[in-house]
Amino acid sequence: MENVITDPLKVILRNELAIKVNGSLWLEASGQHFLGPGPIQLLEHIVNTGSLSKAAAQMKMSYKKAWTLINTLNAHVAIPVVIPQVGGEGGGGSVVTEAGRELINYHQELRQRFKDFVEGETKRLLEA
Amino acid sequence: MENVITDPLKVILRNELAIKVNGSLWLEASGQHFLGPGPIQLLEHIVNTGSLSKAAAQMKMSYKKAWTLINTLNAHVAIPVVIPQVGGEGGGGSVVTEAGRELINYHQELRQRFKDFVEGETKRLLEA
Repeated sequence: MENVITDPLKVILRNELAIKVNGSLWLEASGQHFLGPGPIQLLEHIVNTGSLSKAAAQMKMSYKKAWTLINTLNAHVAIPVVIPQVGGEGGGGSVVTEAGRELINYHQELRQRFKDFVEGETKRLLEA
Repeated sequence: MENVITDPLKVILRNELAIKVNGSLWLEASGQHFLGPGPIQLLEHIVNTGSLSKAAAQMKMSYKKAWTLINTLNAHVAIPVVIPQVGGEGGGGSVVTEAGRELINYHQELRQRFKDFVEGETKRLLEA
């Protein structure tokens, strides 16, 4: 016996509401999130400012919170992503390592693939 | 000039931590989430119990919260997903419509594709 024929999704969902599929993505280890848009943005600000405290300020984040994010990140990598620089002209600062830049690049590519996925799903949903 | 050759991600990330890509997914309209694992699970419990209050109890959710989830869902569809039944043997209860069952099926397929996506990304990450 045939199943009951149901209305397609585009009839069920109200088109005028501009419905879309969306989501969030992160890297985790044993269920603990350690990499997502927040930490990556922080790394990018450290690249631009050369300083963890300036990067934290630009993200309107406490220095302690920023330090925790970087520490959590460093705990999940074999090669540190940020190295504090003692002394020098600015009297300190922080440097994002090549490994950190590699993570930033990877994350950008990952975000792009996820963007493609949710956009594809939105298209599929509205055409279904 | 060549870029600096950096370590691949599998060297940067600590393999022993069983790192994986994970995420969450939902449907939204104008930025408002209205469909995700929670509402779908609630719909499934209504299918099984024939009652919104029983479904809410099974999810350890207040009746008010459950009612709000269903109301939000109904507001985003052209055809109601849940219809209250007045009277009858049990003195009421709720029925998930065909449109609601269609949404449940769609969501299962969507979750499967998202699972494939994050598993594929985890594989890519660990092999990168």
